[in-house]
Amino acid sequence: MIRYKCTIAYDGTNFAGYQIQPDKRTVQLELEKVLLTMHKGREVKVAASGRTDAGVHAKGQVIHFDSPLALPPERWKKALGTMLPADIAIVDIEKVDSEFHARFNAVGKEYRYIISLAEVKDPFIRNYAYHYPYKLDLAMMERASEYLIGTHDFTSFCSAKTEVVDKVRTVKLIDFLKDDQQLVSRFVGDGFLYNMVRIMVGTLLDVGIGKRRPEEIKDIIAAHDRTKAGRTAPGHGLYLWKVDYK
Amino acid sequence: MIRYKCTIAYDGTNFAGYQIQPDKRTVQLELEKVLLTMHKGREVKVAASGRTDAGVHAKGQVIHFDSPLALPPERWKKALGTMLPADIAIVDIEKVDSEFHARFNAVGKEYRYIISLAEVKDPFIRNYAYHYPYKLDLAMMERASEYLIGTHDFTSFCSAKTEVVDKVRTVKLIDFLKDDQQLVSRFVGDGFLYNMVRIMVGTLLDVGIGKRRPEEIKDIIAAHDRTKAGRTAPGHGLYLWKVDYK
Repeated sequence: MIRYKCTIAYDGTNFAGYQIQPDKRTVQLELEKVLLTMHKGREVKVAASGRTDAGVHAKGQVIHFDSPLALPPERWKKALGTMLPADIAIVDIEKVDSEFHARFNAVGKEYRYIISLAEVKDPFIRNYAYHYPYKLDLAMMERASEYLIGTHDFTSFCSAKTEVVDKVRTVKLIDFLKDDQQLVSRFVGDGFLYNMVRIMVGTLLDVGIGKRRPEEIKDIIAAHDRTKAGRTAPGHGLYLWKVDYK
Repeated sequence: MIRYKCTIAYDGTNFAGYQIQPDKRTVQLELEKVLLTMHKGREVKVAASGRTDAGVHAKGQVIHFDSPLALPPERWKKALGTMLPADIAIVDIEKVDSEFHARFNAVGKEYRYIISLAEVKDPFIRNYAYHYPYKLDLAMMERASEYLIGTHDFTSFCSAKTEVVDKVRTVKLIDFLKDDQQLVSRFVGDGFLYNMVRIMVGTLLDVGIGKRRPEEIKDIIAAHDRTKAGRTAPGHGLYLWKVDYK
């Protein structure tokens, strides 16, 4: 058996998220359906760096799977690309050591969150950016983000629905790229809890419109209480941008 | 009654085209549904600069309608914008003379056609650009486009399905903006026949890949025969960009 590491992109609009769920169209389901066909009815399980929610996009999700097929990367890319639906693309594929694991070997992740600031909602990006046409004080948002950077217990920034016990994570970088029409926020860390980026975005937007002061972030983190942070920003603005491995 | 001129944008992906058809979701249907509600059940007919086909997008389609409501433009924009589905947007609205007609007063139109040249099909633009990952000789395409510019009988570049008799049109400009990933073609003229831009694109792509010589365009035009030109390029790469009025 050969282990393959594969970087994929997908438009999350028409998926009920990454992970298989009964009677839903998910990214994992489409991947495993195509691999089943390629392996003539033999089931091939796919492991991902992590799940993404309904509507959330990926530019660089990483998966791995084992196959007896020894195809060169270009052949894999072409075969999978032809068989997969048009909302999933194979960005890259390579043979890796059989010890490699898309989830357990990931040492860092980058997410981006795109906000459209345009006055009129643009039909062409309605599924690809969160429309939030309000004046944002970027300097205040930058000050607030400083409190999030570092190693903290992020219970306040994690959906109460999670089963994860250890909520300590390290956020390495948060930055913003803004013009008149758009705000792109980058979040880099060793890993993120369930809904963590979206709750950070919801809270930073509260700061941006002046509803919260940057210093409040410190208290929100210390409270270890989800209800103290802002709302969960919509999934369709979020992109799993990159997964890092050693 | 007040006549309103309104510029709209729409993502054509989930529409069976602009014009009302039985049992289909069309742009005109959605517009008239919203106007019906705003006018408390009184029917308001909408006239457009022209129809667009299934999958074809608009950045600057122009429509007009008559209403007894004397709302300021910002109020109209907000009301319509809130009630319309997310794949239609109101770009602009203004009161016009009651003689104004979106179709009959149009003196020119600009269409753009977007081709993605990226090797791997990008899931995020699958509905917004035609994926054609082949090497194109732009200089040859430019030479070919010179033959299309001017006043000609464009029967060869018109769908045989049309009911229009006079097939003489004036193409004022065709130009190309190309980088590694994308080719944007602009078409400006006094008006375009049914499928005309898409057939011009299909034919110019034949020139771009070396299947036809630029000089052949002259003979294709002279033939007055649809079968002599290239295929009709897909609708999802086409945008009605702008309609000009005196």
